[in-house]
Amino acid sequence: MSSCSNSSFSSDFKESLPLISQAIQDASFVSIDCEMTGDSLLTSFLCLIQSGFESHWMDTPEDRYNKLRQGAMPFNVIQFGLCTFNKKEDSKQYSVHAFNFYIFPRPVNSDATDVRFTCQSSSIDFLINHNFDFNKCFKEGISYMNCDEELHVTKKLEQRHAEAAARDAQRLLSPSRSLHNDLKPGQKQYMQDLRIKITNFVKSSNESLSLDPANAFLRKLTYNLLHGKYPNQIHVQTKTNEKHQQYLLLQKISSKTDVENIEKMRRNSQLGEVQDAVGFAKVIQLLRESEKLIIGHNMLLDLLHMVDKFCAVLPQSYEEFKLLASSVFPQIIDTKVMATLPPLNDIISSSNLSDLLSTVKESPFSSPEIEWADNMDAYGSASSHEHEAAYDAFSTGVCFISMAQYLASKSAENTDDILAHLKPFLNKVNVMRMQDIPFINLDAPDLTPCKNHVFHVTFPSEWKSNDLYQLFFPYGGVQISWVDGTSAFVSLVKKDQASEVLKNLASCTTCRVLKYSEYKAAISDSAAQASKRKMPSSDVDLPKKRRKSSDNNGTSPFNTERSIPTIIEEDEEENRGTAGDQDKEVEEIVENSDAQPKDAKLFEENDSWEQE
Amino acid sequence: MSSCSNSSFSSDFKESLPLISQAIQDASFVSIDCEMTGDSLLTSFLCLIQSGFESHWMDTPEDRYNKLRQGAMPFNVIQFGLCTFNKKEDSKQYSVHAFNFYIFPRPVNSDATDVRFTCQSSSIDFLINHNFDFNKCFKEGISYMNCDEELHVTKKLEQRHAEAAARDAQRLLSPSRSLHNDLKPGQKQYMQDLRIKITNFVKSSNESLSLDPANAFLRKLTYNLLHGKYPNQIHVQTKTNEKHQQYLLLQKISSKTDVENIEKMRRNSQLGEVQDAVGFAKVIQLLRESEKLIIGHNMLLDLLHMVDKFCAVLPQSYEEFKLLASSVFPQIIDTKVMATLPPLNDIISSSNLSDLLSTVKESPFSSPEIEWADNMDAYGSASSHEHEAAYDAFSTGVCFISMAQYLASKSAENTDDILAHLKPFLNKVNVMRMQDIPFINLDAPDLTPCKNHVFHVTFPSEWKSNDLYQLFFPYGGVQISWVDGTSAFVSLVKKDQASEVLKNLASCTTCRVLKYSEYKAAISDSAAQASKRKMPSSDVDLPKKRRKSSDNNGTSPFNTERSIPTIIEEDEEENRGTAGDQDKEVEEIVENSDAQPKDAKLFEENDSWEQE
Repeated sequence: MSSCSNSSFSSDFKESLPLISQAIQDASFVSIDCEMTGDSLLTSFLCLIQSGFESHWMDTPEDRYNKLRQGAMPFNVIQFGLCTFNKKEDSKQYSVHAFNFYIFPRPVNSDATDVRFTCQSSSIDFLINHNFDFNKCFKEGISYMNCDEELHVTKKLEQRHAEAAARDAQRLLSPSRSLHNDLKPGQKQYMQDLRIKITNFVKSSNESLSLDPANAFLRKLTYNLLHGKYPNQIHVQTKTNEKHQQYLLLQKISSKTDVENIEKMRRNSQLGEVQDAVGFAKVIQLLRESEKLIIGHNMLLDLLHMVDKFCAVLPQSYEEFKLLASSVFPQIIDTKVMATLPPLNDIISSSNLSDLLSTVKESPFSSPEIEWADNMDAYGSASSHEHEAAYDAFSTGVCFISMAQYLASKSAENTDDILAHLKPFLNKVNVMRMQDIPFINLDAPDLTPCKNHVFHVTFPSEWKSNDLYQLFFPYGGVQISWVDGTSAFVSLVKKDQASEVLKNLASCTTCRVLKYSEYKAAISDSAAQASKRKMPSSDVDLPKKRRKSSDNNGTSPFNTERSIPTIIEEDEEENRGTAGDQDKEVEEIVENSDAQPKDAKLFEENDSWEQE
Repeated sequence: MSSCSNSSFSSDFKESLPLISQAIQDASFVSIDCEMTGDSLLTSFLCLIQSGFESHWMDTPEDRYNKLRQGAMPFNVIQFGLCTFNKKEDSKQYSVHAFNFYIFPRPVNSDATDVRFTCQSSSIDFLINHNFDFNKCFKEGISYMNCDEELHVTKKLEQRHAEAAARDAQRLLSPSRSLHNDLKPGQKQYMQDLRIKITNFVKSSNESLSLDPANAFLRKLTYNLLHGKYPNQIHVQTKTNEKHQQYLLLQKISSKTDVENIEKMRRNSQLGEVQDAVGFAKVIQLLRESEKLIIGHNMLLDLLHMVDKFCAVLPQSYEEFKLLASSVFPQIIDTKVMATLPPLNDIISSSNLSDLLSTVKESPFSSPEIEWADNMDAYGSASSHEHEAAYDAFSTGVCFISMAQYLASKSAENTDDILAHLKPFLNKVNVMRMQDIPFINLDAPDLTPCKNHVFHVTFPSEWKSNDLYQLFFPYGGVQISWVDGTSAFVSLVKKDQASEVLKNLASCTTCRVLKYSEYKAAISDSAAQASKRKMPSSDVDLPKKRRKSSDNNGTSPFNTERSIPTIIEEDEEENRGTAGDQDKEVEEIVENSDAQPKDAKLFEENDSWEQE
């Protein structure tokens, strides 16, 4: 298929919802993929250099969550791929629906947030080179808002209508001077013509009159005129025409009920507009309600965006996020976790999605039999759709089935339950480039690997990687993870050398070597101290409404575009556009890559390979 | 014309530069217009509500500069319109070139900033509804970078080549363990095939060999193999093919000179790439060098972006900005300033660009005679191109000529010098919605209007606008400018009532009333105190390289998209999409609009008219 093309269009979206709902209901599982306006994929290494040498090897899952929450959520999801896989009874065949949604959060009304989102040039460049249609996305993309926003907008709307009703009951006149003083000639002429027009309308048998589009000031004059001269005869409301111009609609009224009816219709139509603006979030809601197994590939960013954009703004606390995510999506499996953990990691050499798809097409794997539902065009074997969200979701589903079938074939247990052999992978989400922690556990505590072989080293700013390598040379190879220009984490390849290091380097005069645990305890102490000291003047937790923009002076949240903060690539493999690459492989050669920030060139294209 | 379409394409841009340069050289003046990914135009009033009631009436020019620098610069310029107007000798005719550039800052290499920019949904929606072609912009847009960035990238490039030369002279081997341990079966096969391929290449008469695209790890293995086995026989470099995949190019070498030549060619080609990436900034450079008179309409944001995106990052200091801007563009005129100052403000009722264009087409104005250069398609009278940058630049130029001709006709002095009657408008740039300060003076001190009739009032949080109106009712009408939920500036309509207010309200028990000057002195005192206290721990002025991302914890610069900070609309009139509206008119009715944040609804569509 090339997407269920109908569902790409806003106008047809509402009509497609029942089909989507049915497909989800019938599914044995669904697979998903997001395309975003940025994922910092190509800049992680650059960031490492630009943002103060920071790297991420030593992140805890909580560190990583916070970095992604702050660093990646400003990007927007602009395409969402959803594939439903329905296993036919007594058959190995799957019936598949694939939906490719272009989505774009349009502001529905003046109460709704006029969403600002960040774009990363490299991501935009990547998408346009993979035939992403931005014009279609921005013009026809289905709108969306999360539940927080829906609640806010609905509440505001109800409030406005209550106020309008109160105002109609007892008209409040403003204490302003008359607007009719100092009118310019053109405006005087406009008002003169308007008076005639309205007098004719009142005399006529017409029930309503649409005035020509006019600017705010002229509309305000008109409102004043009508309220002064025809207080109980004409109801006025501002409308927007198809050219996005605002005009006034005048309606004759003869009773209070007339007004109430007009207002009621207006309220219902506005509530309908809000529901239209909730738009694509309804699909995610269907997914939530179905509690179906959701498959993604390297899906941490997808998951964060799905929660943030369509459900609720991500909580500050990592633990709260885990609770929220597992309550929203209680069953998920990440195919990258399957491919990189035992037993499959032994026979899968690259967990990059396109490599994985090639791998599972050959022995010992077997491809699933796919039947496309409802005369959809099938995705053939061609990969020209690569990085279209629905194609990537489909590929993910195919990889999932092939790996699951293989695991089932190796098992003694014979069952039709797709999850039977997949328990070890359930609710684990892959994380990239974190030492010793390959995944986060959504519904269980995370791994806390021993870090006795890791040290925090503080040294003179002149030091480069080579100085650190030489310092630790007697203890075997090390992996360096820069913190800033004068400190780094150093991780021993030979873990048993840790006590030797402590014995010999504790008294080092040019540098200071701390055990990882000592360092973490020290910074958590000083953070606690700092937050105690800062409490009275900090406004971080004040409600938005009271936060003044002057708080931003000199440290504008928008003043950072050209000093990229450190963000982790997580989205879609290390290798967009080239063939395979893996965490493990990158780890193997990280000794060199980490040397980069300090300009110790050990490999001609160090940073280009690290960036992929 | 519908743009000098050739110049829209990156590929043709270089060829068009001489034509553009000639057109600028020949011009009597040029007009410009930018389209951006956001201007907060439609949200200013919303911001006022969302960001803490802040409003901008009492801004000083410095306040405004800082708000725009921080709030609007994260948006990107994606289309630039340039029109050159060449007045023919002994004729009233102008020969016009119009250029419409789609521009997009692509990262040229790994040293260049991967630009992140903010988009505002409403602006994107507005542009797509005015036929902006985002696909063309992102795919074919001319790249750009400012001088700061160009310098940085060039320096980095030279540094890399110096390092490479040093490395070639004395090959540094990495202290890493062998990468060939633990290869997976697929990787082992790859290396085996590679060895055969290279052996055949060495034996053959071919001078070079392009390997197939491969991932970073395999390329790293290949580098190691070649350096180990053919250290002085084969030169290796990483190349990128048209599919954005990376591959290795092997070249046979027989002498040191061979290597030097290859490296020299590589260096030159890379420097050429940087120059291509400077791209559109070269047009602005031509404009700077020409020192021609530059015309814009309501051009403050355009000017800020032109400096920031194509010249140098905007300085923190407003005074420094004024110096920089006047040195870069020594002669500019803003047609909105011309239309809103005496003597023209008497006969121009709306200074909105499309209204202004209509006005100057009729008596007492006369339209200029336009001759389109070089067989360009002329913009007819249709406004279907409205908000295409070149069309808006053209309209601005036409308004300028008409107004200038009118002023000349009223003058006793008879001269052909276009600037003779325009001195009062030179280097003044319009600012929106600032009380008593309609423009900033780029090359002279700004106005400092008397604020004796303005008071800062602090009051209980339950207060709404009506409470303030009632408080000041005895002294005539007031204009309210909210600072936050418990304070506001209040400006008397009857300025002579100021002493009465002070006499009667100084002892008010429910609220505190301060003279504007007292309030400003108090906050500037407390700001000075605060900055003294904060100095040691502040990192605002630390160089970027030393700034750790941990500084962002909890207050991420990217975590603000859904809590919009206050930004002023400035770009393109109050009224995109509807007809006319003016500062002055809005000021006249501001008593009501300011009531909005406190929910005192005095006019049914208060916020919609304010938002335009």
